[in-house]
Amino acid sequence: MGMANQVWLYDTTLRDGAQREGIALSLEDKLKIAHQLDRLGIPFIEGGWPGANPKDVQFFWKLQEEPLTQAEIVAFCSTRRPNITPDKDRMLQAILAAGTRWVTIFGKSWDLHVTEGLKTTLEENLAMISDTIEYLRSQGRQVIYDAEHWFDGYKANPDYALETLKAAKNAGAVWLVLCDTNGGTLPQEVNAIVKEVVNSLDIDPNGEGFPKLGIHPHNDSGTAVANGLAGVVEGVRMVQGTMNGYGERCGNANLCTLIPNLQLKMGYHCLSEGQLTQLTQTSRLISEIVNLAPDDHAPFVGRSAFAHKGGIHVSAVQKNPLTYEHIQPEKIGNERRIVISDQSGLSNVLSKAKTFGIELDKGDIICREILERIKTLEHEGYQFEAAEASFELLMRQALGQRKTMFQLKGFQVHCDMLQGEGTPYSNALATIKVTVNGEDKLEVAEGNGPVAALDSALRKALVNFYPEIAEFHLTDYKVRILDGGSGTSSRTRVLVESSNGKQRWTTLGVSPNILEASYQAVVEGIEYGLLLGTKVKEPVELS
Amino acid sequence: MGMANQVWLYDTTLRDGAQREGIALSLEDKLKIAHQLDRLGIPFIEGGWPGANPKDVQFFWKLQEEPLTQAEIVAFCSTRRPNITPDKDRMLQAILAAGTRWVTIFGKSWDLHVTEGLKTTLEENLAMISDTIEYLRSQGRQVIYDAEHWFDGYKANPDYALETLKAAKNAGAVWLVLCDTNGGTLPQEVNAIVKEVVNSLDIDPNGEGFPKLGIHPHNDSGTAVANGLAGVVEGVRMVQGTMNGYGERCGNANLCTLIPNLQLKMGYHCLSEGQLTQLTQTSRLISEIVNLAPDDHAPFVGRSAFAHKGGIHVSAVQKNPLTYEHIQPEKIGNERRIVISDQSGLSNVLSKAKTFGIELDKGDIICREILERIKTLEHEGYQFEAAEASFELLMRQALGQRKTMFQLKGFQVHCDMLQGEGTPYSNALATIKVTVNGEDKLEVAEGNGPVAALDSALRKALVNFYPEIAEFHLTDYKVRILDGGSGTSSRTRVLVESSNGKQRWTTLGVSPNILEASYQAVVEGIEYGLLLGTKVKEPVELS
Repeated sequence: MGMANQVWLYDTTLRDGAQREGIALSLEDKLKIAHQLDRLGIPFIEGGWPGANPKDVQFFWKLQEEPLTQAEIVAFCSTRRPNITPDKDRMLQAILAAGTRWVTIFGKSWDLHVTEGLKTTLEENLAMISDTIEYLRSQGRQVIYDAEHWFDGYKANPDYALETLKAAKNAGAVWLVLCDTNGGTLPQEVNAIVKEVVNSLDIDPNGEGFPKLGIHPHNDSGTAVANGLAGVVEGVRMVQGTMNGYGERCGNANLCTLIPNLQLKMGYHCLSEGQLTQLTQTSRLISEIVNLAPDDHAPFVGRSAFAHKGGIHVSAVQKNPLTYEHIQPEKIGNERRIVISDQSGLSNVLSKAKTFGIELDKGDIICREILERIKTLEHEGYQFEAAEASFELLMRQALGQRKTMFQLKGFQVHCDMLQGEGTPYSNALATIKVTVNGEDKLEVAEGNGPVAALDSALRKALVNFYPEIAEFHLTDYKVRILDGGSGTSSRTRVLVESSNGKQRWTTLGVSPNILEASYQAVVEGIEYGLLLGTKVKEPVELS
Repeated sequence: MGMANQVWLYDTTLRDGAQREGIALSLEDKLKIAHQLDRLGIPFIEGGWPGANPKDVQFFWKLQEEPLTQAEIVAFCSTRRPNITPDKDRMLQAILAAGTRWVTIFGKSWDLHVTEGLKTTLEENLAMISDTIEYLRSQGRQVIYDAEHWFDGYKANPDYALETLKAAKNAGAVWLVLCDTNGGTLPQEVNAIVKEVVNSLDIDPNGEGFPKLGIHPHNDSGTAVANGLAGVVEGVRMVQGTMNGYGERCGNANLCTLIPNLQLKMGYHCLSEGQLTQLTQTSRLISEIVNLAPDDHAPFVGRSAFAHKGGIHVSAVQKNPLTYEHIQPEKIGNERRIVISDQSGLSNVLSKAKTFGIELDKGDIICREILERIKTLEHEGYQFEAAEASFELLMRQALGQRKTMFQLKGFQVHCDMLQGEGTPYSNALATIKVTVNGEDKLEVAEGNGPVAALDSALRKALVNFYPEIAEFHLTDYKVRILDGGSGTSSRTRVLVESSNGKQRWTTLGVSPNILEASYQAVVEGIEYGLLLGTKVKEPVELS
């Protein structure tokens, strides 16, 4: 079972992660995530609680049809209910029906939860732990035992808490996992308490032999990752966490942070080097699947994790990355970024230009002009950090390299909504007038809403001149209000992501009128797509 | 200088925090934040680097006019440049002109940064540290010495790194602050290295005497908070961090997490009990000032930090909060929340109803109906987690308690944009028809954009019937695209926050047409405001 310095990762994104407010996973989402995690090389993937949730039953069936290639998929369940035998417990029958080789069983460690929550005796709880594990083993399952509320239970009644773990050990659990269910434990407490467990249960502090120890931290004290590391320092060899730290309340331990810390800094083995380079991409894919914006500031995998802003700093990091970066971003598949902002110096503008394939000279007056223009626009609410395509257009304009592909004369948008006795009727219509190649084009189109109608009318007007437009489509559309305080009269910033099927790029528009801001962003999106087509060099993948 | 178990907080939101991508602070913003932090009871507030930034010069001038009540405002600067005397250093003159009693000077600890970055000798760097501190002391300043890149410097060359600290100590710095500038250090390393510093520099490990130790962690390894705590365990008595963890790349140590850990869990004194209850509010106010959405999942102060989702769990937490909450949320001014989601059980619906002052019985068939209705709407893209006012309206409708205050017949929105030779012209016009008290009202209004025009027309139609509408205004307007993949044809979810000057409430609308979704949310906002006015009991502050 692995090498001496291995730490086994146990992902619970599909169960604990899905408890995060705002996440609602479909069966399809769950399957996609499981396959992503399998590809990344996570050895244990908790799939759900089949007894508690019909969607999870289906999930395990589906995985029997299309099994994972390497990972063990794990079904989750509580110990048997009080005062029945395991074979009579509906939940335990459901976990067996899931057909996995590994199962995770959680039981109570905290006396208070036994007597007040389960309303049973401390002795019966010990029997529930032993019986359940023995029964599942008799059915050919390998058992991971999750000691719920372990740290709080230990603090309240250490002797009893240790007895529950001993019951699990004696019944033959392969892993004993110490859960910080309420997330209130600090790293120094983890150090001390894991030490006690290692001594009392005669666990090998180097992680050899069985049972082995695991840890399951929550982030309510902001120390979930540190708690995981503290556990490993004391002999724990399994860390349970979630991708991007998703989870109830403040989340679970973030595997995207734990893995590089364990592997690149503490010398443990979690993934192969090649798998590790997939970490950033997997993190972002999963955030797409769960439909949450990725955290740009996440350690290691965030878009800003290796972003450099200040001027002096930027020149230094380019000379010797070691001076300003704690690890090489490539090792985890992330990259260094130079940020454009109102604190930008010339060196940032130069480096950014370079990534667009534009060579500028520091002495060139055009550089200062670009900087001034950025500052003015940012003052008006433009923000180029997330809209690099608009930024490139701005640069090319300053350099006289921006080709006018068409000119807007005007547009009209008309929306109707009727609610009478009959079915409600709603319609959006856009009329647009543009000049292309000296020719005036007037077009009209309908859409689900006013922005879709505008987008559609514009394409109609341009597609005969630029046939490649037929391939472009909008892949994301985001709206941000700039000064929330003034409600619907506020200025609106619209970001539009477009795609030509191969690349994606983001453009922006700002206006008090949401339709005008949208229109600006849509137009720049089309213009940038056309520009990409004319670039000779291999175009850069823009985020 | 304080009591024996005091940990001094040092906030650098205004300098290091402002380095976060997406933050751009005006002078006004900076002043507001400084006063908020002063009110919270932070003893040291770093205001900026007056030598490097003209805005910061103005900031310190302004604070001389309107000084803080309790906090020390601190000016930040590097040591003198190589090979000049401090009195000739323009930056140091600027820091003196800032007129603060305390100054923070940062210097190099890492030999590599001295020879490659500053291009000077290791000896000259020691002289730069001593000279600068002595000079500033001769000008009546108290000096905090920030040892930049301390941990990396110590790992590379411990002897030299310690010499730099000794130079600062001998020159009379009051505080020696160990900075983890690149954020790559793990808590167990902090423990070991701080221990070394305490021994080598003869620091009192209980934090008595001078100099005292501070720590300045960054979050690139996801352990900034844990690193701060590890420092304190070993004798550190100042923690430098930022509100909400703002800062470059992955942020700085989050004071909103550090403070409750230190004070409620580790027994140190940071703030008075009363000040501590202001923590959540201050965190949210500052996120408003910097114009970033608050992190709902932030430990302690996040909106979800004490949110409970699962059904069984919810009944348990109401019986005995200790079983599922690591601290009492009231201590830091946060509150317990019961979340409505598609995983909601009946008990969630009941608890939520209770917070609206609606008593429901579990056996009541209406409960199941509400649950079914929520599930259907959530499937369509509605999400009530952030729109509790809309949720209350839904409940009251199911109970037959929703009064029809007006009926929409229809609306038309017309937007014009003309771009010709002259000034671009843009206009938004909305026509609306509603029935109020059996009377048809047709109204028209203009606005900056189509949503503002719609809002305005609706008010015009209703204000004679419901004069209190004149007091209502929209305080926030958010748009989220539900299925990003289909661009502008996607369904749109609009959240509208309204206020009557005393309370705020949030309503939502969903539609493929952004104007229709906006209209739904605006209408429910007005309806809910009217409902609040009719409530007999003290109305609940809704978030």
